[in-house]
Amino acid sequence: MLLKDKIEKILRDAKEASRVLAGVPTKDKNKALLAMAQALLKKSRYILLRNAKDVSLARKKGLSSAMVDRLKLTDKRIKEMAASLRSVAALKDPVGDVIAQWKRPNQLLIKKVRVPIGVIGIIYESRPDVTSDCAGLCLKSGNACVLRGGSKAINSNLAIHGVITKGLKKFGIPDAAVSAIDVTDRKAVEFLLNAQGLVDLIIPRGGEGLIKKVAEESTIPVIKHYKGVCSLYVDRFADLKEAADIAYNAKVQRPGVCNAIENLLVHKDVANRFLPALARTLEGVGVELRGCQKTRRILKDIKAATEEDWYTEYLDLILAVKVVASADEAVAFINKYGSRHSDAIVTKNKKVAEEFLNQVDSACVYLNASTRFTDGHQFGLGAEIGISTDKIHARGPMALEELTIYKYIVLGSGQIRT
Amino acid sequence: MLLKDKIEKILRDAKEASRVLAGVPTKDKNKALLAMAQALLKKSRYILLRNAKDVSLARKKGLSSAMVDRLKLTDKRIKEMAASLRSVAALKDPVGDVIAQWKRPNQLLIKKVRVPIGVIGIIYESRPDVTSDCAGLCLKSGNACVLRGGSKAINSNLAIHGVITKGLKKFGIPDAAVSAIDVTDRKAVEFLLNAQGLVDLIIPRGGEGLIKKVAEESTIPVIKHYKGVCSLYVDRFADLKEAADIAYNAKVQRPGVCNAIENLLVHKDVANRFLPALARTLEGVGVELRGCQKTRRILKDIKAATEEDWYTEYLDLILAVKVVASADEAVAFINKYGSRHSDAIVTKNKKVAEEFLNQVDSACVYLNASTRFTDGHQFGLGAEIGISTDKIHARGPMALEELTIYKYIVLGSGQIRT
Repeated sequence: MLLKDKIEKILRDAKEASRVLAGVPTKDKNKALLAMAQALLKKSRYILLRNAKDVSLARKKGLSSAMVDRLKLTDKRIKEMAASLRSVAALKDPVGDVIAQWKRPNQLLIKKVRVPIGVIGIIYESRPDVTSDCAGLCLKSGNACVLRGGSKAINSNLAIHGVITKGLKKFGIPDAAVSAIDVTDRKAVEFLLNAQGLVDLIIPRGGEGLIKKVAEESTIPVIKHYKGVCSLYVDRFADLKEAADIAYNAKVQRPGVCNAIENLLVHKDVANRFLPALARTLEGVGVELRGCQKTRRILKDIKAATEEDWYTEYLDLILAVKVVASADEAVAFINKYGSRHSDAIVTKNKKVAEEFLNQVDSACVYLNASTRFTDGHQFGLGAEIGISTDKIHARGPMALEELTIYKYIVLGSGQIRT
Repeated sequence: MLLKDKIEKILRDAKEASRVLAGVPTKDKNKALLAMAQALLKKSRYILLRNAKDVSLARKKGLSSAMVDRLKLTDKRIKEMAASLRSVAALKDPVGDVIAQWKRPNQLLIKKVRVPIGVIGIIYESRPDVTSDCAGLCLKSGNACVLRGGSKAINSNLAIHGVITKGLKKFGIPDAAVSAIDVTDRKAVEFLLNAQGLVDLIIPRGGEGLIKKVAEESTIPVIKHYKGVCSLYVDRFADLKEAADIAYNAKVQRPGVCNAIENLLVHKDVANRFLPALARTLEGVGVELRGCQKTRRILKDIKAATEEDWYTEYLDLILAVKVVASADEAVAFINKYGSRHSDAIVTKNKKVAEEFLNQVDSACVYLNASTRFTDGHQFGLGAEIGISTDKIHARGPMALEELTIYKYIVLGSGQIRT
C-alpha cells in the first residue's frame, strides 16, 4: 500500500472510531482507562525490552545523555504512566454537560452541549510516556487520537500503544479510537497535518522547533504549547522577603520547565536593597545572572544581558535581570519579550497589582505567588495535555474540558422562519 | 516605504491599540459605537460617492449583476449598517466576566476571566457593509481589528473606515483599534496571514475559495465560516404536514444562504406518502429536484442526483432528494456529505430523535424545526461575525462572547511550589 493510502486508512478508521467513542458512557471509558493502566504494569517487561532497543540505537547514534534520559523508560516511569491513567479515570467527564440553555420567544429551546472535538493528532518527540498520557486524556474526553511520536522512540511507542489498546473492545471502544502511526517516514506527518475532514485538531508536544514547524505546515487547527519565557516583577511596594522566596522558587526549584522564570524585573526604588542579597543566594546554588546596565551598577560582577537574552527560554540556571522605572515598564517588557505563558508581580499595592494583572497579556498572571503553579495538577484540573500559549480555544493548562467543544441542540415543535 | 514595512507598521499599531482597547470601559465603547453609527448617516453621501466609483469600475470590468449587487450601497443599506452598530452597542459586554473561580488547598485563588483575543484580521470579499459590521463587533468585544476587504470594494471600504474611525479618540480608543489595509496588492494578505505575534486570529468571510486559500496560507489560527451543505431528514415517525412545512421553509424561504437545506432525506416507509405532494409544492415555486434511484421511482420526471450533488451547496432553488432505509443511514449520510453546519430531523419518536441529535456531528442540530434558525439574531445572540464550521474555539453562530478568550488571574500571598 502507498504511504498516503496507509495513513489515510488510519485516519479514516480513527474518524469512524471517534463517532463510536463519542457515545461511550463514562463508566465504560473509566473501566477502559483502568484496564489500560493494568496492562501497562502487566506488560512492563515487554515494554522495557522494546525501549532498550530505542535506547541502544540512540546511544549508537551518539545522542546527548539528556536525550537518552528522556527516551529511557524504567519500572518507576511505567508505574507513573499507569498511575496517570488511573487518575484520569477518576476525573469528571465533561462530555454531555449542558453549558447553557435558553428558550426563544418562538419557543425554540436552544441547548449548548459539551461534546468531544473528534479526532486529535498528537505529534511529539522522544518521550514515550506521552503515548499513554495523551491516549488517556483523549479517551476520557471522548476523542479519538492519532499518535505520532518521534522516530527515535518508535519501538517504545508502538509497544505501549499495542499494550494499552489491546483490551479496548471489551468496553465498546474500537481499537482505532487510540491510533498510532507506525511509520517513521516524515511524509506521514505531512499527510496528518493536511488531512482536512479527517483530523479536527493537532496538538504538537515538544520543543520550539517542532511546534513552529507543525504550525507552519498544518492546514488543520493547531493549539500551540509554546515556550515559556516567564518573568517576575518585583514592585517597589513588594514585601522583599516574599519576593526573594518567590524569585528563588520560580527560578531554582525546577529550572528545566516552561513555567520557571527567565527574566527578573525589579523596580528601581528597591533594586539596591533587593538585588545584592538575592544574587548571593542564587549564585550560591549556581545560578548565572545576566543584567541590564543598571543592574550591573549594583551587581558589578555579572555579565551583560543582550537583547537576545530577554527573549530566551534558558531552561537552565540562568536568569536575566533588569531594573525598571515603573510597573508600566514591566508590563511593556513582558508583553514585548515574554511568550504569553506565565508572569508574576510581587506587590502590596492593590492598584498596581490590578493594572499588572489586567494588562499583562499572558495565559496565567500571578500576584504574590510563584509562576511554577502553571500546571494542570496545581490548578486542580487533575491532568494536562499541555499549556496553551495560543489565544483561541484554550489558554494555560489544557485538561479534559479544553479537549472538548460544544454543539447546539435545538428542540422545536414545527418552527419555521418567517 | 516597502509594502512589508507598511503592513507591519499597521499591524504593530493595531497590536498597541488592542492593549488600550482591552481596558476601555463598556460605556465608552458603547458611546463610540453610537458615534460610528451617527457618522455613517452623516457622511452617507460621501460613502455613496466613493461606492459609485467601485460600482462603475466593476461594471466596466463586466462583473455579474449578482456581484455588482453585493458591492452596491444604497441609503437603505447605510441605514442598516448604522442600525447594526447601534444594536451591538446595546448588547452585553462579555469582557471581564469571571467564568469560574476556585481556591486551591494552598489558598491560591484562581480566577478564569474573559478577555479580548487581541488583534483580529478580517479578510472579506466585495460586500462593503462587512467593514462596519466587523469593526463594531470587534470593538465591542475589546479586539482591535485589521480589515482587508476585496480590491473591488476598496474605495467603499476605505471611505467607511475613514468615517467610522474619525471620532474614536474622543472615547479613549486609538484610531488603530479599527485598522484597514489600504493597498490592494495580494502580497499584503500574505503578510497579514503570517504576522505571528502581531495578529492573534484570522476570520475570513466569503466564498469557499477564499476560506480554503486563507486556511492553507495562514500560520495564524483561522476560524472558518465554511459552506453550508445542510440536510433535513424526514423520519418514518414524522408528522408529515410539519415535515413538509419545514422542508419548504428550509429550502425556499431564502435559498441563497448557508443555513438553507441542499439535501432532503426521507425514510423509505413514508417516501411514497410524503414525496409526491411536496414535489408538486416545491416545483410549483420553481425548485428543481434531483433524486436517488428510489426517489426517481416515486418522482419519475426528476433528474438523477450524482455523487457530486450530495456534496454541493447550491445556494439556489435546487434540492437533492434521497430515500434512506433508517435514521442511522441518514446520520451516516449527513456526517459524510454535510459540512457540519446545520441539520434537522423531523420525528415524533424520542429515541430516534435523541440518537440523531447526538450522532450528527454538526454545529447546530434541530429537532422538528427549520435549519434557517442558525443565525446570531435568531439564536438571541444579537449579532454574528459568522457561523463557524470549525471544531475548536467556537461552533455555529459566532457573536461577542466567541470573540473573547480567557486568562487565569491567580491571587496569592507568597505561595511557592514545594
